[in-house]
Amino acid sequence: MSEVVLHLGALLHLRDDPETNPEAIEWTPDGALLVEDGCILFAGPAARAPKIDGAKRIRHDGIIAPGFIDAHIHFPQTDIIGAYGKSLLDWLSDYTFPLESKFSDPILAAGVAEAFLDEILRNGVTTALVFATSHVVSTDALFHAAQKRSMRLIGGKVLMDRGAPPELLDAPGGGIAESEDLIKRWHNKDRLLYAITPRFAVTSTDAQLEAAGKLAAARQDVYVHTHLAENTDECAFVQNAFPDCGDYLGVYEKFGLVRPRSVFAHAIYMPDNGFKRMAKAEACAAFCPSSNLFLGSGYFDLKAARAAGVHVAFGSDVGGGTSFSMLSTMAEGYKVCKGRDAPLNPFLAFYIATLGAARALKLDHQLGDFSAGKEADFIVLDPASTPIMARRAAACTSLHDLLFAMMVLGDDRAIKETWVNGKLAHARDGAAPRTIGNFAWTTLKI
Amino acid sequence: MSEVVLHLGALLHLRDDPETNPEAIEWTPDGALLVEDGCILFAGPAARAPKIDGAKRIRHDGIIAPGFIDAHIHFPQTDIIGAYGKSLLDWLSDYTFPLESKFSDPILAAGVAEAFLDEILRNGVTTALVFATSHVVSTDALFHAAQKRSMRLIGGKVLMDRGAPPELLDAPGGGIAESEDLIKRWHNKDRLLYAITPRFAVTSTDAQLEAAGKLAAARQDVYVHTHLAENTDECAFVQNAFPDCGDYLGVYEKFGLVRPRSVFAHAIYMPDNGFKRMAKAEACAAFCPSSNLFLGSGYFDLKAARAAGVHVAFGSDVGGGTSFSMLSTMAEGYKVCKGRDAPLNPFLAFYIATLGAARALKLDHQLGDFSAGKEADFIVLDPASTPIMARRAAACTSLHDLLFAMMVLGDDRAIKETWVNGKLAHARDGAAPRTIGNFAWTTLKI
Repeated sequence: MSEVVLHLGALLHLRDDPETNPEAIEWTPDGALLVEDGCILFAGPAARAPKIDGAKRIRHDGIIAPGFIDAHIHFPQTDIIGAYGKSLLDWLSDYTFPLESKFSDPILAAGVAEAFLDEILRNGVTTALVFATSHVVSTDALFHAAQKRSMRLIGGKVLMDRGAPPELLDAPGGGIAESEDLIKRWHNKDRLLYAITPRFAVTSTDAQLEAAGKLAAARQDVYVHTHLAENTDECAFVQNAFPDCGDYLGVYEKFGLVRPRSVFAHAIYMPDNGFKRMAKAEACAAFCPSSNLFLGSGYFDLKAARAAGVHVAFGSDVGGGTSFSMLSTMAEGYKVCKGRDAPLNPFLAFYIATLGAARALKLDHQLGDFSAGKEADFIVLDPASTPIMARRAAACTSLHDLLFAMMVLGDDRAIKETWVNGKLAHARDGAAPRTIGNFAWTTLKI
Repeated sequence: MSEVVLHLGALLHLRDDPETNPEAIEWTPDGALLVEDGCILFAGPAARAPKIDGAKRIRHDGIIAPGFIDAHIHFPQTDIIGAYGKSLLDWLSDYTFPLESKFSDPILAAGVAEAFLDEILRNGVTTALVFATSHVVSTDALFHAAQKRSMRLIGGKVLMDRGAPPELLDAPGGGIAESEDLIKRWHNKDRLLYAITPRFAVTSTDAQLEAAGKLAAARQDVYVHTHLAENTDECAFVQNAFPDCGDYLGVYEKFGLVRPRSVFAHAIYMPDNGFKRMAKAEACAAFCPSSNLFLGSGYFDLKAARAAGVHVAFGSDVGGGTSFSMLSTMAEGYKVCKGRDAPLNPFLAFYIATLGAARALKLDHQLGDFSAGKEADFIVLDPASTPIMARRAAACTSLHDLLFAMMVLGDDRAIKETWVNGKLAHARDGAAPRTIGNFAWTTLKI
């Protein structure tokens, strides 16, 4: 028998890009979200919600919004988040590779996968595009843990056949059979999806990139997930290693890896026509601001990417990124954009973290807003989750202000609840936060 | 009768600059801090603590460290922290000035002062150098609230006689008599200290700067607190307004405002010899990284300032800064330094936030470390205050790692308790955080 639940509270979702469509923002202070077996039946004013016999009613004291999507994160790096002092290439050799070597152990991998998914859910992230390690067992561990939580999650085994310690390397040109096997076992199993995951051009031979490209051509329904132009040293390295490719993006183009469902993390140092080429191929970019600031990589050019027609999602890029929180990631994104003299509007930031990311990943028929028929992954946001946020919220005069304050000041505590596939997957623990009087955010105008 | 308390726990303080003195770091896992009536009698291994009859014993599950010092913050801006989209000069006209106009109301000012001090104490800040508004009543409100909490706090009425709305302006060349009266009433009253506080060169006439300089010369025991070279537009403005001064620092030099106990917030766009001139005058700099990133102002050059011999402290610069947390400020400082390709060592960051700041403010005979005779302002840090911090802490192999993880991942929750003048001033509320097993940080080597 099906279960129907009527979730009551303030409703916020974006049905379109708020910079091109002023009607995109849907804000319903007295709203209802009707969910049947993990599927959205209705979202809108509570007064207009269909009456369904036997529907359970839950009143939420907060803002019901679509779950966040994190389009670039490394689950094995959970425990080296915020490690000291390195830039990209040293980071990999000094921290990442020694750690990832341990993920041949299925018990260890399973433990970290569980903790990782708990942490992203604590931060309101309901879908993520995730690097495992080069080990099949670590990829299995991730998918098992995500399956248990009914999550729509995209993951993949790393492909590396050079430039890393031997125990992490595939056979030369290899790793493809394992990837195919993982696709067979996990792609479209429940809500799981697979990504062919070459780490980056530096750690794959031509033979491996070519084989990965062939697999990507044969399986257009599968993702490609890799890194692109994050750091100047890395770019110089690639230029040397692939002198015939023109530029870094050209390496991936040469091997057929730039196509729909290809996700390129970072894309900071791009040639003039780079974003145009990505847009034409329907490839997308993951903007990873906390990582870019923490590793000192540089500033992603959000405006240029969007102007060229590239779909952009956020990536926390943990462990190079310093927070699992998508709110903190937006705040860091604001700083990066400010560094390019173009402040990031909070509605655009929320769009990028929800429907924008779903569009980038071609999952917008299932995720990203509360259209009827979409999957019921949502969060309950608490705009007064710390004393200072409560004061700041009380001083807000518009929804724009309130969202911006939440992204700048919010952290895991701002996520009161996370619902996955219609079921409660995380509820904030600890005492209720202190709030102050006369906090009337539900009446705010956009 | 005097009260003696023996605080037991892991003890961490820096007795000197860790970059020049490798013996500076004092880490005592099984430590004791003996406090009598707000004064430190002993700090060191618990086994060597003097036995005092009737001493109360308190065991702390955390790291006992000196309270943090925030050398640049605006209390009236508490409620506009994280406001959207502006750079410095627009920030002032659009957000700051309209808000500060309300602080002629003593009731409003008192309410914000109370909330402000509660919030800094929640974040482990026990001493701050604070801008009030141009109103005497707002300055009184701040001092009253700090006096009630027995804090060592430095504050001052803003001096402005141009470039702001009329209701915020002193009479031309004025504000000095009010400052003198405030000095008389508050400077060295209990633990309070006064700062002559011209907002910045842009908002004071020559006459006001000259009068402020005369007062600063007459009262060498009082502070000077202002802004310097934060933003390129501001610098251009100053260059135009004071064409005979050579550069921005030269304006303050001309009027006798660059001297010991002068604190210049930001100091980003400095002439080649600027830091040398500041060092020679024994003036110091407040490094405000979260504000610099949030307002897109630019990157302070910590290495150059220190190399020139300038004492540097951190400033949160709330409301332009985005966090009251000194840990978050250190993390943002790391990013700014990384942007200049010089990662900020966590021991140096902790030094700057404690003894380094005390030296900059010439309060190191009273604050900054646990030397016998100093004032008992201290905090209890919890390195496992969130699930992800607990995991990260468990993976740390040195105190260096642990401190770095705390500054990158920590927030107000990492401050378990704040003690001021020997008394408990803040205890974290809410449920105890979840920790994981085998977390043996007290045995870490430096």
